[in-house]
Amino acid sequence: MNLRLDLAYDGAPFRGFAKQRDVRTVQGEIDSALTKLFGHEPTTVGAGRTDAGVHAIGQCMSTSDAPDDLDPVKVRDSLNGMLQPAISVADCRSVPDDFSARFSARSRAYVYGILQRDYPDPFLAPTSLFHSEPLDVDAMNEAAGHLIGAHDFSSFGRLPEPDAPAERTLFELRCRRDGDLIRIRARANAFLHQMVRSIVGTLVQVGEGRRSVEEMPEVLTARDRAAAGPVAAPHGLCLISVEYDTGWTGVPFFGKGSSV
Amino acid sequence: MNLRLDLAYDGAPFRGFAKQRDVRTVQGEIDSALTKLFGHEPTTVGAGRTDAGVHAIGQCMSTSDAPDDLDPVKVRDSLNGMLQPAISVADCRSVPDDFSARFSARSRAYVYGILQRDYPDPFLAPTSLFHSEPLDVDAMNEAAGHLIGAHDFSSFGRLPEPDAPAERTLFELRCRRDGDLIRIRARANAFLHQMVRSIVGTLVQVGEGRRSVEEMPEVLTARDRAAAGPVAAPHGLCLISVEYDTGWTGVPFFGKGSSV
Repeated sequence: MNLRLDLAYDGAPFRGFAKQRDVRTVQGEIDSALTKLFGHEPTTVGAGRTDAGVHAIGQCMSTSDAPDDLDPVKVRDSLNGMLQPAISVADCRSVPDDFSARFSARSRAYVYGILQRDYPDPFLAPTSLFHSEPLDVDAMNEAAGHLIGAHDFSSFGRLPEPDAPAERTLFELRCRRDGDLIRIRARANAFLHQMVRSIVGTLVQVGEGRRSVEEMPEVLTARDRAAAGPVAAPHGLCLISVEYDTGWTGVPFFGKGSSV
Repeated sequence: MNLRLDLAYDGAPFRGFAKQRDVRTVQGEIDSALTKLFGHEPTTVGAGRTDAGVHAIGQCMSTSDAPDDLDPVKVRDSLNGMLQPAISVADCRSVPDDFSARFSARSRAYVYGILQRDYPDPFLAPTSLFHSEPLDVDAMNEAAGHLIGAHDFSSFGRLPEPDAPAERTLFELRCRRDGDLIRIRARANAFLHQMVRSIVGTLVQVGEGRRSVEEMPEVLTARDRAAAGPVAAPHGLCLISVEYDTGWTGVPFFGKGSSV
């Protein structure tokens, strides 16, 4: 049976999503728990390989080798009982054999949160960047406009391998201020490694007035990471949702102010 | 100079608000930082003595012995630089000599959060009680109605000393469901120790159908803690605001879904 899992996690305690030897990762924790439920080690894939410290409320995983006699709702409840509170499985269901959380995904949406005011907030600190200096959100949006579309994004991210294709299609990139919280939403067919955080680091420089809007096309064409701004801290970033032909992921989330 | 501090804190790392020897408390951390700024140990009072693990977004403190040459805004910024991220000072200002964060307070308002649905949430877990079974919020509100007003609340809390007066005036007590999040708001002139959490524990039993609405007057008149329900876990509770003649405290807070 092919199972789909929709999950949320606080990225702080993990060295990222993707399973790695000898370190705690989200996929590693899920795989360990599924091994107990399945009676064998599962083969899992995820929609987004979030970096160490990056959060998710709309991550999606699939595993094609679940025993047919398992009840997906019981799998969800058992996982929530076994996993630490930093990971929560919102939904588990049986899906057609050809569904892959990774390869069936049409787009991934991330939101980066920035708290921009004079003093920090203990409840937002784990999920947003604190920035006490003002930011020009209009300029940030204007700069963002230059990045939307299909481009070679190698100025903004690492390639999985040196000669891998660096073109990605950025469908949305916008900054919105809601009181003191600025949220940067980015949606693309896929992202290079560290791409959202490099874009955020660059847009913040524009917002600070340290980089002009007009430079953005040059940054893109440089195809050189030194042309872009720094990689923004991981804890402000959250994988919000993944788009499939059947709709979107995205755990109903009441702390919307905190990280969405 | 008499200084007023408005602050927010994540209660998890602290053994409560009130200063105690050899353990980490919110007041202890603030006092240590102020000692460095003032050049002497300050005398501070707080509006609410929150228990270990209880959060605040509208706590208020005052200290009457601040050196007159200090700029309150710089005191705020220095404190935020010195304190750990779990505490944030939203405001610091000079106030009339007769202002006491504790004795000038007219009322204190707390909110208790309960996430009621089938699966937990990693971002709400630190600030709400997870309750997977349904709760009858209408019945909880009906039970709450019996507690509003001036009563001897000794069934619901510990007295500071055996013969201290146990009468408190509960101005508001209501439960509201917002999606899967149930928030119980309680406002009183003052609270006995553990009073909000004992009320919440009792209302949850009513919501579960394990205790009837009609029992509530008897629970009050029993003046016996065994008559009430259990003390609800501290991490769901947050001191939201304190009322003074000059208005309310309450830090502008964007993670409103999380704990307010």
